[in-house]
Amino acid sequence: MKKIINQPAQVVDEMLDGFSYIHSDIIYRLEGYDIIARRAKKTGKVAIISGGGSGHEPSHAGFVGEGMLSAAVCGAVFTSPTPDQVLKAIKEADEGAGVFMVIKNYSGDVMNFEMAQDLAEMEGIEVASVVVDDDIAVEDSLYTQGRRGVAGTVLVHKILGDAARLGKSLKEIKRIADELVPNIHTIGLALSGATVPELGKAGFVLASDEIEFGIGIHGEPGYRREKMQESQKLSQELVEKLIQSFDIKETDSFGILINGMGATPLMEQYVFANDTRKLLEKQNIAIVYKKLGNIMTSIDMAGISLTLIKFKDKAWIEALNSPVTTAAW
Amino acid sequence: MKKIINQPAQVVDEMLDGFSYIHSDIIYRLEGYDIIARRAKKTGKVAIISGGGSGHEPSHAGFVGEGMLSAAVCGAVFTSPTPDQVLKAIKEADEGAGVFMVIKNYSGDVMNFEMAQDLAEMEGIEVASVVVDDDIAVEDSLYTQGRRGVAGTVLVHKILGDAARLGKSLKEIKRIADELVPNIHTIGLALSGATVPELGKAGFVLASDEIEFGIGIHGEPGYRREKMQESQKLSQELVEKLIQSFDIKETDSFGILINGMGATPLMEQYVFANDTRKLLEKQNIAIVYKKLGNIMTSIDMAGISLTLIKFKDKAWIEALNSPVTTAAW
Repeated sequence: MKKIINQPAQVVDEMLDGFSYIHSDIIYRLEGYDIIARRAKKTGKVAIISGGGSGHEPSHAGFVGEGMLSAAVCGAVFTSPTPDQVLKAIKEADEGAGVFMVIKNYSGDVMNFEMAQDLAEMEGIEVASVVVDDDIAVEDSLYTQGRRGVAGTVLVHKILGDAARLGKSLKEIKRIADELVPNIHTIGLALSGATVPELGKAGFVLASDEIEFGIGIHGEPGYRREKMQESQKLSQELVEKLIQSFDIKETDSFGILINGMGATPLMEQYVFANDTRKLLEKQNIAIVYKKLGNIMTSIDMAGISLTLIKFKDKAWIEALNSPVTTAAW
Repeated sequence: MKKIINQPAQVVDEMLDGFSYIHSDIIYRLEGYDIIARRAKKTGKVAIISGGGSGHEPSHAGFVGEGMLSAAVCGAVFTSPTPDQVLKAIKEADEGAGVFMVIKNYSGDVMNFEMAQDLAEMEGIEVASVVVDDDIAVEDSLYTQGRRGVAGTVLVHKILGDAARLGKSLKEIKRIADELVPNIHTIGLALSGATVPELGKAGFVLASDEIEFGIGIHGEPGYRREKMQESQKLSQELVEKLIQSFDIKETDSFGILINGMGATPLMEQYVFANDTRKLLEKQNIAIVYKKLGNIMTSIDMAGISLTLIKFKDKAWIEALNSPVTTAAW
């Protein structure tokens, strides 16, 4: 393992200190906690929070800021944050109108966030939540009942963050979230495994000419390993699976998110974007929103994921385009 | 080589098509050229342009947009753009007040941009330029007389882009640029080499426990290879060399830019940021501006660079903080 770190056990702590140093104008770290909260003035609106294991940077701390998340809770690498940390984030974020939690569908996350919700409600804070399960690659997985929550989660942050800024109630935000999540589908592939610093070696190994389709963001198994192919073939497989996963009418419009897994250069992401554009055009899929970059990574994994969001509500497009003050959106 | 591309010879063309697809709200690609230009309304001000070989994404196309670059010229991977491409960019960007070129100090770039300047002046367009040579690692290099131009170049884009937006004349911008460039110093290190798609193998190979200090963004040799060390030791070497390179008074204030080389996860960049913060604080270096991310990459190189900018003019800080509309700032 060759990484720019110090003691592997300190990596999250030091990363969060570095993060709060670099972005001190936007966010702060709660002393003694692995929580990043925004500096934006409290205005009595609903607070959106999220979090999960570390190793997916810039998720989720990079999306804390005005117009998006109020706070992010950062667990150990690939490990759910504990309920007391989530509870502290809820209390820090609350502005009196309740707190909405965006949870990726991993058994540990769901359990710990829901436990924190119970504890917060006992203290009189209103809490609601949604579980994001956008990854269509596989049913059930190493750490998940049902589908995994992956890159599409960040679109949920953005759309709900905008709704909160517009002053929507906790109940309204819950309604939007429940309508939104089934309309976001993601599928990815890996060229290499991710190395958790404390383990010191890659979670899985692919041969020098091999890829795996459907991999999870913690290296959970996908659905097929095979020989490396050209970008247009890779895109074709992901686009086809995504299109099949939606019930598409001619009048539907969509957004795409192309997500690098951590070690995939922008050069490759943009080549893949070009292939994806061609395939979507050929299928007459109307794309009215586009985003690309390292959004939900898997430490140093090389790979890419493609997310399609179907805009059942035009307000979602406006929400995605609204300006925010964050480190990474 | 395992890369998400199609034919290696087509990688720049397809990447630029993908880039202009994803960011079509901000920029467009000039049909038939490897040039990205901004959509912002022309207002008769000086245009700032830049460019160079591809492989440094998001540089430079990612910095085209309102408040920053008017256009970027993209050469083949690690290869200077040709004079006719640069000339075309000058003509496309010109709004009647002249065009200012930010050139990284590589012999090919300097020659081709200056040739384009001569051609443009023959056509009646006023052109001025600056050559950025911020890399303090080595004197002279594989493709360079003197010092190389690296990540600090993007700070020049930002500060001059703001000056242009404020309506400064070509002459004033030249004056700012000449004062600015000597106050930006960068030094980097690599954990792995970069693979140019058309070559198919890494430009240099480091052992699994080896790093190289002072490497260039095209894999040009640095000044020392040695065993991998902890982040704080790596930071210490870079910080010390940077501090030695400036004449520092107690009243001076600085900015830092921590730059990932392409395959280095944010996790590592933020750990390094934390170590760098501690070292700068210990040395009583006042840091009033901070930025971090994959800004000037070397395709899929793992590595990091650290830039210090000494603020001789407080206006530079305001310029760095001013909002822009680009794909990547």
